[in-house]
Amino acid sequence: MAGTARIGIVGATGYVGLELVRLLAGHSGFLLAELVSQSHVGRPFSEVHPAFRSIVDLACSDLSADRLAERCDFVVTALPHGVSSALVPGLLDKGLRVLDHSGDFRFKDAAVYEAAYGLTHPRPDLLAEAVYGLPELYRDRIRTARIVANPGCYPTCTLLGLVPLLRAGAVDPASLVVDAASGISGAGRKADVPYLFTEAAESFKAYGVTGHRHRPEIEQELSAAAGVPVAVTFVPHLAPMKRGMLATIHAQVRPGFDAAALRRIFEEAYAGEYFVRLLPAGTFPETRSTTGTNFADLGLHYDARTGRIAVFSAIDNLGKGAAAQALQALNLMAGFDEAAGLRLPALAL
Amino acid sequence: MAGTARIGIVGATGYVGLELVRLLAGHSGFLLAELVSQSHVGRPFSEVHPAFRSIVDLACSDLSADRLAERCDFVVTALPHGVSSALVPGLLDKGLRVLDHSGDFRFKDAAVYEAAYGLTHPRPDLLAEAVYGLPELYRDRIRTARIVANPGCYPTCTLLGLVPLLRAGAVDPASLVVDAASGISGAGRKADVPYLFTEAAESFKAYGVTGHRHRPEIEQELSAAAGVPVAVTFVPHLAPMKRGMLATIHAQVRPGFDAAALRRIFEEAYAGEYFVRLLPAGTFPETRSTTGTNFADLGLHYDARTGRIAVFSAIDNLGKGAAAQALQALNLMAGFDEAAGLRLPALAL
Amino acid sequence: MAGTARIGIVGATGYVGLELVRLLAGHSGFLLAELVSQSHVGRPFSEVHPAFRSIVDLACSDLSADRLAERCDFVVTALPHGVSSALVPGLLDKGLRVLDHSGDFRFKDAAVYEAAYGLTHPRPDLLAEAVYGLPELYRDRIRTARIVANPGCYPTCTLLGLVPLLRAGAVDPASLVVDAASGISGAGRKADVPYLFTEAAESFKAYGVTGHRHRPEIEQELSAAAGVPVAVTFVPHLAPMKRGMLATIHAQVRPGFDAAALRRIFEEAYAGEYFVRLLPAGTFPETRSTTGTNFADLGLHYDARTGRIAVFSAIDNLGKGAAAQALQALNLMAGFDEAAGLRLPALAL
Amino acid sequence: MAGTARIGIVGATGYVGLELVRLLAGHSGFLLAELVSQSHVGRPFSEVHPAFRSIVDLACSDLSADRLAERCDFVVTALPHGVSSALVPGLLDKGLRVLDHSGDFRFKDAAVYEAAYGLTHPRPDLLAEAVYGLPELYRDRIRTARIVANPGCYPTCTLLGLVPLLRAGAVDPASLVVDAASGISGAGRKADVPYLFTEAAESFKAYGVTGHRHRPEIEQELSAAAGVPVAVTFVPHLAPMKRGMLATIHAQVRPGFDAAALRRIFEEAYAGEYFVRLLPAGTFPETRSTTGTNFADLGLHYDARTGRIAVFSAIDNLGKGAAAQALQALNLMAGFDEAAGLRLPALAL
Repeated sequence: MAGTARIGIVGATGYVGLELVRLLAGHSGFLLAELVSQSHVGRPFSEVHPAFRSIVDLACSDLSADRLAERCDFVVTALPHGVSSALVPGLLDKGLRVLDHSGDFRFKDAAVYEAAYGLTHPRPDLLAEAVYGLPELYRDRIRTARIVANPGCYPTCTLLGLVPLLRAGAVDPASLVVDAASGISGAGRKADVPYLFTEAAESFKAYGVTGHRHRPEIEQELSAAAGVPVAVTFVPHLAPMKRGMLATIHAQVRPGFDAAALRRIFEEAYAGEYFVRLLPAGTFPETRSTTGTNFADLGLHYDARTGRIAVFSAIDNLGKGAAAQALQALNLMAGFDEAAGLRLPALAL
Repeated sequence: MAGTARIGIVGATGYVGLELVRLLAGHSGFLLAELVSQSHVGRPFSEVHPAFRSIVDLACSDLSADRLAERCDFVVTALPHGVSSALVPGLLDKGLRVLDHSGDFRFKDAAVYEAAYGLTHPRPDLLAEAVYGLPELYRDRIRTARIVANPGCYPTCTLLGLVPLLRAGAVDPASLVVDAASGISGAGRKADVPYLFTEAAESFKAYGVTGHRHRPEIEQELSAAAGVPVAVTFVPHLAPMKRGMLATIHAQVRPGFDAAALRRIFEEAYAGEYFVRLLPAGTFPETRSTTGTNFADLGLHYDARTGRIAVFSAIDNLGKGAAAQALQALNLMAGFDEAAGLRLPALAL
Repeated sequence: MAGTARIGIVGATGYVGLELVRLLAGHSGFLLAELVSQSHVGRPFSEVHPAFRSIVDLACSDLSADRLAERCDFVVTALPHGVSSALVPGLLDKGLRVLDHSGDFRFKDAAVYEAAYGLTHPRPDLLAEAVYGLPELYRDRIRTARIVANPGCYPTCTLLGLVPLLRAGAVDPASLVVDAASGISGAGRKADVPYLFTEAAESFKAYGVTGHRHRPEIEQELSAAAGVPVAVTFVPHLAPMKRGMLATIHAQVRPGFDAAALRRIFEEAYAGEYFVRLLPAGTFPETRSTTGTNFADLGLHYDARTGRIAVFSAIDNLGKGAAAQALQALNLMAGFDEAAGLRLPALAL
Repeated sequence: MAGTARIGIVGATGYVGLELVRLLAGHSGFLLAELVSQSHVGRPFSEVHPAFRSIVDLACSDLSADRLAERCDFVVTALPHGVSSALVPGLLDKGLRVLDHSGDFRFKDAAVYEAAYGLTHPRPDLLAEAVYGLPELYRDRIRTARIVANPGCYPTCTLLGLVPLLRAGAVDPASLVVDAASGISGAGRKADVPYLFTEAAESFKAYGVTGHRHRPEIEQELSAAAGVPVAVTFVPHLAPMKRGMLATIHAQVRPGFDAAALRRIFEEAYAGEYFVRLLPAGTFPETRSTTGTNFADLGLHYDARTGRIAVFSAIDNLGKGAAAQALQALNLMAGFDEAAGLRLPALAL
């Protein structure tokens, strides 16, 4: 696509929408054409979020597929699951290209979706067409997709750390253990007691232990990488910070792979990947080095005593885990430089 | 100046230097030519601060005025007071234009400097030449200055909220009370016990109560605005956050000014000022709306019961309070668009 | 009263109730007899708040004045304003002695209450009887009161710093400016967006600028101390921490009082007051030194240049600002040692 | 021991010492006789830590074994490794009973100590005598010990979650993976850049990945429990909070153990253990429920899909992970009620 692409965001005032507006505000290719927010219709975006005063003063609009079709080339849906699947087909029918943030189009198998989300999928036919929006895995298909399903934050973080090992056959797929910690923005802009400052600050806990919706998503992609069905131990944790996600991933290494060979697997997998930064041996990522960005920082440690590798994968859950990754995919869809608007360093401090 | 300006930063790995590198990394006019850090000579900047991997991998260099003169057009000095005043004259002699972050060139009267900082000034002659780098007050002089003294964070925050009132004669200069709170990055990258997470988190306190170095700086500029010597009550506080500064300013309003008149003073003072955002009546700033930016957000409340006005002025202490304001001044000095590289919204979340 | 006093808490699972349960759990004189929580009837208190497992496993009960009367000697009501005033009269009628945490019984003048809270007071007759529960001001009346109105957190913090000066005639009552910062627990256990971790962390702001309910309460007690009607400038702020409150208080000193005289006023006012700690000259309080306790730490600074005194008053908003102060008053009411259960040091770290 | 025991703390002003002083200030059996702090000799403890004003005003003293012997029955050493091993033997020679917080007396095998700490042990003979101070494992030996080695925080947290499983033969000792997160107080009161608020807040990272000193300590005790040498994968993480520690522990379950059987193992192991709270099935601990206390909260989840159990173990790293556990052991040594001074609920809010 030449020139400028007009973009609309449905769910613009939630955290993912907000972050996307922030990133798009500095993007020379995309034009913010519609900011749909049903709870703030008619109010300037910058009144809802005063940080945007004098930068994004566009008024929020009500949801109208016709209006979106008329004014946009691309639509990003940042909506709860179940809501996206009802809205997106109509947008596609009107010729729009859609990037969806919910879980509704991430699964190849409707039964897996339905078990994880407790909903019947209204359009399982679209699951075959939808492309899983992790550019490092599906770059070419994203370029031409009508519908891209933006990956979950935990899956993004985990897959970047595990897929190379599984593709290389370097680890036992039955041995995978993932402990991941997320900042609190992952819960969205919902007023629930556990996410109050008073409840969340100065504490750390696991949650979703008995079954988190991101586990089947992780397993779908790990199984594809391994070529066999993979069941993973996955435990998310809540850390007292606004943003950031670290996955600490453990796997039993197969005979024949030593520390150097394991590192080589990652070097080769991510050669040429601007947004995946493999840290030097002996150094390990911290989440703040990715705050506000699309970067994923990886660190490796092979322990010969136990024969296990630990992979550390750090992202911003709202960045590479949501809005920045969405922009990376949108750049591909629109034919822009893949890193356009995404080259800025983190607000690490 | 046409095209590209080469810039060097002395003290590049401290917090102010770091923030300046972050902002300059996305600037199309300035070229980061030299990053001087005497504690990290030869190490890539991105090794010291991993957030910059693949973005700013330039190696840190040792301090050499000759090398700076050869490779740069502009030099920013982010150094302790006393160190700047020893270095800057030599840089000027070599034809460089300098923006200095210390207190060494902010004062018109060497005696005031010497009382505040406990140092003898080596070059009081330069105090007359140096321009106080608050563009909203001294824009034209900054454009052509050889040496710009970047204002302190508290002075910036306070002056933007008070100067219009004093210039208009709307408040009693003897009545000024300023309580300001700062994030902890104001203390710099120094390993001192009071700034440890364990000591600073979950607490709030006043500090510098018996005399903070920014008070005479505030008073110098307030006196200039009022046309009479001004003594102010100024109390800085430390808030448990990384960045952000709010000044809550109280003044006794003179007869003849009501709420509407007071608001009009600010509207007129800041008409056309992109970086000063006067919030609508009844709304008040929060620091996070300025995080990472050059914006100053102002709110006003006039209380007819007491006859006092409260002005609320929020900035990022590292942004408009330091590095972003420096970039605004450098843009002016280099003849660039004043807002170049500074139009991005805050990382409010 | 000899031996043990039975106590019931209405609103036991909110933050003030919770803190009172925490303090009473280690108290040898009071027996926790009833924990009323209408949203958790029948659930063990320790199931609602797992920190109390094996310590307070008592089941929460429904609200019943009869049951409270039968099982308790004292009742603490930790309820919203308007709710307390409807409930408390019935409890008094049944012979219970009540300590109320709302604003419903803090005002001597029903009209002031009604203006501040927007409610008609159902029992203005009780306002004359109710004792304002600040032991440092009204110790003797508290001992025998049927109903004690626990002071607000901001009033407690402010009054301890200002009343001695006004009583001594040392400052101009027309000159009072109070900037106070509070931790987020002051907002209670309400799921509102502004109190989410993501919205409140890493930010600082003023709120309630155009009129906070604690201002008339502060003015009532300051006026009593000054002997003239006092109007104060009072600005509350929200700091990103769970607990803690600091009031920074400014007043114009009257002729004849120097730094030593001003300090003497406080020394005399608080001689013998265990819970008010006047810090040595040149040192100033931080809120964390009071976390979890009933202490109020005061610091003083007189600035001869401006003729103003700054008083710094630090408390835990849930401690001396709410539950611990309530326990101090309850100790008085029950005839126990005033400091019983309140001698533990802060969790400053 | 009847009546009162006199206690001295060497290293009283560091974080562990401070927490011990806090707990002992409210203890009826121990008398704080000596607070040794070589950097603050002669200063009142409450001047160094103002939270203790009017509670612990005792002056800090210099280190003198004679003076300690004269004035104390018990001495707690809260010193760096290498320093303890030089001091403690002399204290024992003078008849004192010692509880040591360093790693110097935790190992049975001097070679393991020397490999982990890079020091030659000056008195390997004392390693046989020293008792590992985890009361849930070694209660009886602690009662009569001359020297107790207080366990590390990570070992305490991990062992409470794993020893029952290994003793019961329920898990494969070769399968153990432990990801643990700690608050920043674990680093002590050292002014190092990574522990500054600005560097640690709003971030999460692993550290000590290539080898943490607590790993051999964990392995020593796990090996004893399993009856075979155990090598464990152990990864500590730093979470942006002052206190708190959560270990998330993964193990492959052996055939014959289902969820109910696994739960029964813990129920039986901790029946009668006041400080270990096994949470109901389906609920999981958060660290704040243990803040300031000696409690360890455990949660369990068995995943039949993978055959793995996840055990969650939460403590306060300064509480059950250091000072509170020390007090539990001291209570045993002195013949006091084991829970004396340790029954208070957490400051969860």
